[in-house]
Amino acid sequence: MALIVQKYGGTSVGTVEKIKNVAKRVARTKAEGNDVVVVVSAMSGETNRLLGLAHQISDIPNERELDVVAATGEQVTIGLLAIALTEMGCKAKSFCGFQIPVLTDAAYVKARIRQIRGETITQALKEGHVAVVAGFQGIDDSGSITTLGRGGSDTSAVALAAALQAERCDIYTDVDGVYTADPRIALDATQLPVIGYEEMMELANQGAQVMQVRAVELGWVNDVVIEVLSSFEDAPGTLIKEDPLVEQRNKVRGLAHDRNVAKITLVEVPDRPGVAALVFEPLAAEGINVDMIVQNIGHRGATDLSFTISQVELARAKRLLEPIVRDLGFREITTDTSVAKVSIVGAGIQNAPGYAARMFRTLADAGVNIEMISTSEIRITTIIAEDALETALQALHAAFELERPETVEAAAAG
Amino acid sequence: MALIVQKYGGTSVGTVEKIKNVAKRVARTKAEGNDVVVVVSAMSGETNRLLGLAHQISDIPNERELDVVAATGEQVTIGLLAIALTEMGCKAKSFCGFQIPVLTDAAYVKARIRQIRGETITQALKEGHVAVVAGFQGIDDSGSITTLGRGGSDTSAVALAAALQAERCDIYTDVDGVYTADPRIALDATQLPVIGYEEMMELANQGAQVMQVRAVELGWVNDVVIEVLSSFEDAPGTLIKEDPLVEQRNKVRGLAHDRNVAKITLVEVPDRPGVAALVFEPLAAEGINVDMIVQNIGHRGATDLSFTISQVELARAKRLLEPIVRDLGFREITTDTSVAKVSIVGAGIQNAPGYAARMFRTLADAGVNIEMISTSEIRITTIIAEDALETALQALHAAFELERPETVEAAAAG
Repeated sequence: MALIVQKYGGTSVGTVEKIKNVAKRVARTKAEGNDVVVVVSAMSGETNRLLGLAHQISDIPNERELDVVAATGEQVTIGLLAIALTEMGCKAKSFCGFQIPVLTDAAYVKARIRQIRGETITQALKEGHVAVVAGFQGIDDSGSITTLGRGGSDTSAVALAAALQAERCDIYTDVDGVYTADPRIALDATQLPVIGYEEMMELANQGAQVMQVRAVELGWVNDVVIEVLSSFEDAPGTLIKEDPLVEQRNKVRGLAHDRNVAKITLVEVPDRPGVAALVFEPLAAEGINVDMIVQNIGHRGATDLSFTISQVELARAKRLLEPIVRDLGFREITTDTSVAKVSIVGAGIQNAPGYAARMFRTLADAGVNIEMISTSEIRITTIIAEDALETALQALHAAFELERPETVEAAAAG
Repeated sequence: MALIVQKYGGTSVGTVEKIKNVAKRVARTKAEGNDVVVVVSAMSGETNRLLGLAHQISDIPNERELDVVAATGEQVTIGLLAIALTEMGCKAKSFCGFQIPVLTDAAYVKARIRQIRGETITQALKEGHVAVVAGFQGIDDSGSITTLGRGGSDTSAVALAAALQAERCDIYTDVDGVYTADPRIALDATQLPVIGYEEMMELANQGAQVMQVRAVELGWVNDVVIEVLSSFEDAPGTLIKEDPLVEQRNKVRGLAHDRNVAKITLVEVPDRPGVAALVFEPLAAEGINVDMIVQNIGHRGATDLSFTISQVELARAKRLLEPIVRDLGFREITTDTSVAKVSIVGAGIQNAPGYAARMFRTLADAGVNIEMISTSEIRITTIIAEDALETALQALHAAFELERPETVEAAAAG
């Protein structure tokens, strides 16, 4: 008998009818002879409704109390799903974070899991129950409710799978797997049967919305085999796992893109030590995540410093930076939100020559201007104009022949 | 420094604006130098919405899981109220049932409180917080969430007041106190400044919707002084407490009425031992509460047995009774939902002659026919036609001179 963790996101449990469908799928997995732990999110729209109520009361709501409010979304779903399972004759028992318990630190609204005690769940499984667990939530040492931040249910599911040594963690969502690129843009994008943890992390980090980066990382560290698949179809998804075939593969596994990018340029920054720290420290202190940073070599003792952040944080960032620009005597600060990020991701890209060159040549031939470049071990990212995004993705998808990725079998045979 | 428990019902916290108003009232009580524990219900309509979701999934939802869903209503309110208090500079900390803990038995959807441990709340008060507590919910020995049944927040508040030895338990609601009769019908009804526990229990039991019977009983047993008052006005309400002045008062303190009554008559019941048990045992087993029972002396070996139940339970009761009527050879079963219940309530009614006679004479003079009668130590109740209800209430209100009840002072002086 295998132990399987299944996670269903907000769109998969968005209505009473959808919850009944999830119950059928869970009951089937149970009837096939498996122990099943189901992790669920809030019904779609519910978390936003709850946070909206809080923000009608306070611009900056007390975070301990915000978590008390937000955690109810998942609690409603576990109760409803357990009712649906019981109704169809499948024994089920729901668990809030505090009941397991899922122990976290006390960093409200962005808590990190410290430990999951598995005994309560194991006991319920032994009694023949499906365990229905509220994702996204935990409890800190003082007994206060915490939440893991947006998309935290993925993290809950993978952490539970690790704690319970589950055979697999299935992430059910509204797409049917991980694609070589967004299939709404690159029309010949194909689904990947398997992808390595590191590649998946880079894809997620660079804009692929399939799964939370943090959850993939947790899976990697704990060696949890994850499958991303659709809750609306019966078809194999994409396995995320240690991939020993990396060397034999097409090194570019997929493209990621992100429109939610703002580019900030500080013009004529004095070229002396410590300036970058003065710029980035206040952003970090406010929790604003800086993504790419490019500084050109200075001339006449001054340089331009460009970096990207998420568009939603632009207003806050400008408010923080304007006094600094004034105090340090930069010429000016310019911002641009009409940019997008395009990345190619693949294990070993950096060790194999020619990928960067081919990427830049492809973009040039397609008439796409590159504004910024950054690279990692397994990724090359460019910032381009947002209106060139579709052209760029389609050209890169063709150039790296992603419309026919190897299948697991073919790669294994090769 | 006094410790005051305040309870706000669903209509008092029905919108974000109303929650802010409650926060102002709480903060003012705190600023006046009191320790404050606030117990809140779900925002009005929310509990029905949540139960509605569950009933879309199952006609008879699993009760453990129903409580998991229902308990979220109060959890949202405590978070929002704590946010509102913090926003206005008043330190506040919210508590779910499990965090206090409020220990109950495991009778889901109708749990009873076993014990409240006060230390967590006391600690929060010591740290200068207002403690904001979710009413209606608790936790059982196994760590499962329980709820106390409809209106359970009143019970939570009184139980907390008893456990914390609070000076007073203020029940804020959408009426401004307890009246001699429903002021929408008896237009000259007046607010009672004070009423004894037992009288209040009878009034609540007989249809006055101001407060839950169970909560009054708990207050009586633990000697908690309760005040019922409006959350929308600043005016004294009605004190519910041990009333030593009972003997000096007008013995009729108020009228109660209830339209939610169905009368069932079993016609020509064989007049032999054990028949009543055969009728009422199955109703009790199904949790159907039988209120008044009247059986006339039999003639020719058969008798008519009439009793009243709540209208919403009529269909279930008929389904249960029909086979019994058939099996035992009663002539037929008749039902009537066009009836209403009218009671006069007052400590000592039964020891003072003439009240019953005056009640029946008043109804007769008003042309109101009495269908059933029952009495208790401090109450006389009649069943009449529903369309005679207003006439009856107005006539009784005048006959017992309830338009000028003694004030506390006057009674004390007398």
